Amino acid sequence: MLSKNTLKFIKSLQQKKFRKQENAFFVEGSKNVTELLDSDFHVSHLLYTEKFAEENPEAISNFKGESFLVSQKTLESAGSFQTNDSALAVAKIKNNSLPNDFGKKLVLALDDVRDPGNLGTIVRIADWYGITDIVCSEESADFYNPKVLNSSMGSFTRVNVAYTDLYQYLQKVQFPIYGAFLEGENIYKADLSSSGVILMGNESNGISEEIGSLVTQKITIPRFGGAESLNVAIATAIICDNFKRV
Amino acid sequence: MLSKNTLKFIKSLQQKKFRKQENAFFVEGSKNVTELLDSDFHVSHLLYTEKFAEENPEAISNFKGESFLVSQKTLESAGSFQTNDSALAVAKIKNNSLPNDFGKKLVLALDDVRDPGNLGTIVRIADWYGITDIVCSEESADFYNPKVLNSSMGSFTRVNVAYTDLYQYLQKVQFPIYGAFLEGENIYKADLSSSGVILMGNESNGISEEIGSLVTQKITIPRFGGAESLNVAIATAIICDNFKRV
Repeated sequence: MLSKNTLKFIKSLQQKKFRKQENAFFVEGSKNVTELLDSDFHVSHLLYTEKFAEENPEAISNFKGESFLVSQKTLESAGSFQTNDSALAVAKIKNNSLPNDFGKKLVLALDDVRDPGNLGTIVRIADWYGITDIVCSEESADFYNPKVLNSSMGSFTRVNVAYTDLYQYLQKVQFPIYGAFLEGENIYKADLSSSGVILMGNESNGISEEIGSLVTQKITIPRFGGAESLNVAIATAIICDNFKRV
Repeated sequence: MLSKNTLKFIKSLQQKKFRKQENAFFVEGSKNVTELLDSDFHVSHLLYTEKFAEENPEAISNFKGESFLVSQKTLESAGSFQTNDSALAVAKIKNNSLPNDFGKKLVLALDDVRDPGNLGTIVRIADWYGITDIVCSEESADFYNPKVLNSSMGSFTRVNVAYTDLYQYLQKVQFPIYGAFLEGENIYKADLSSSGVILMGNESNGISEEIGSLVTQKITIPRFGGAESLNVAIATAIICDNFKRV
């Protein structure tokens, strides 16, 4: 049976402080939990409903950690979802390493993307376009925030997200650093490489001046109407599409 | 002074039932309120803080409706924002008409896009790409929902969003109807017209079978990695970009 202490432990993981202390996180919902179970994350706890067990019998029988058949109500009290009739799983945090093979691939760099929904959506976009590495400034939203993991729709298992001092890190990069600016070069006409860094900025302030100074090519998405700007996740998607369609 | 009754009236507009009954809606935050005041919407009430008045003196002096200098606390109790230190404005709902000049332009059609944040983001994307008309199925999120208007970042003033029986409406269209399907033609290689309808589907179920039968060209965004799908607003942005870049 699920103890009060375990429930308390899971709930505490909604806060970054406790995720760091326990070196653990959780995800919710059928899609995220099944993707987590299929990944190389070490999953310690699995809470599931009868419905989830009926739909995923192998996931339950193959699971090696502590598993608990619980009610929908218990799932909802343990996690962050208002409605959860399937599952919740706890796993160990991975220490993701910084990519250093820029010469061979595209890497996304995020300068202070603060909104967890935006980060999760960007992880999903990266996964769609086959970009396996994202480097974030230390002030960016925490990858293990439930909102980030949930909005990634399972893509968090396939994308390596690492945090560092972005300025110091990008200073060492010898490959092109493309930065999204409103006054950059038209992305339809720009010479876009199949390797290097695509740098995106903060929701309100864009790319900071310090980090912007390292950009080797400023790019922009052409505008045809009246909107002043695009959401950072939307802009990331369009830019990735333009890099990949070449 | 702002009466209790006016405050109650504004609060009630968070619900679709009362928006319909009163034929009115509200928007919050500096960007949305200033865009609303600059638009052809008929604005009846303006609630603003001293900060907003200092930053927008002309908006206040030119305003013809009922205006109230209020505290941040009052703004937050009237509207849906947790934090609002600028303004809130109430305006009359416009009866938007259905576009019928498909031969000359691109129109977006949404089959049951339910999430208000997605609809608002799509309105902003349409505005960026100069698409001035969106036709929604009747089950789609309500355009005048505060979440839709807020996430449009002011673009709601420049995009005409109308609701109708989408199947009956699209039956009469003589121009190409492009539908986003996972098994459609590669959008990088497809012949994309500068006029016609771009049809997007529901968050979970995509385009319905009935409406899908009217699609003249199925298109898809090429996938390079592991994600199963893209969020509907993200997919809309990428598709609009591909139509416009031609």
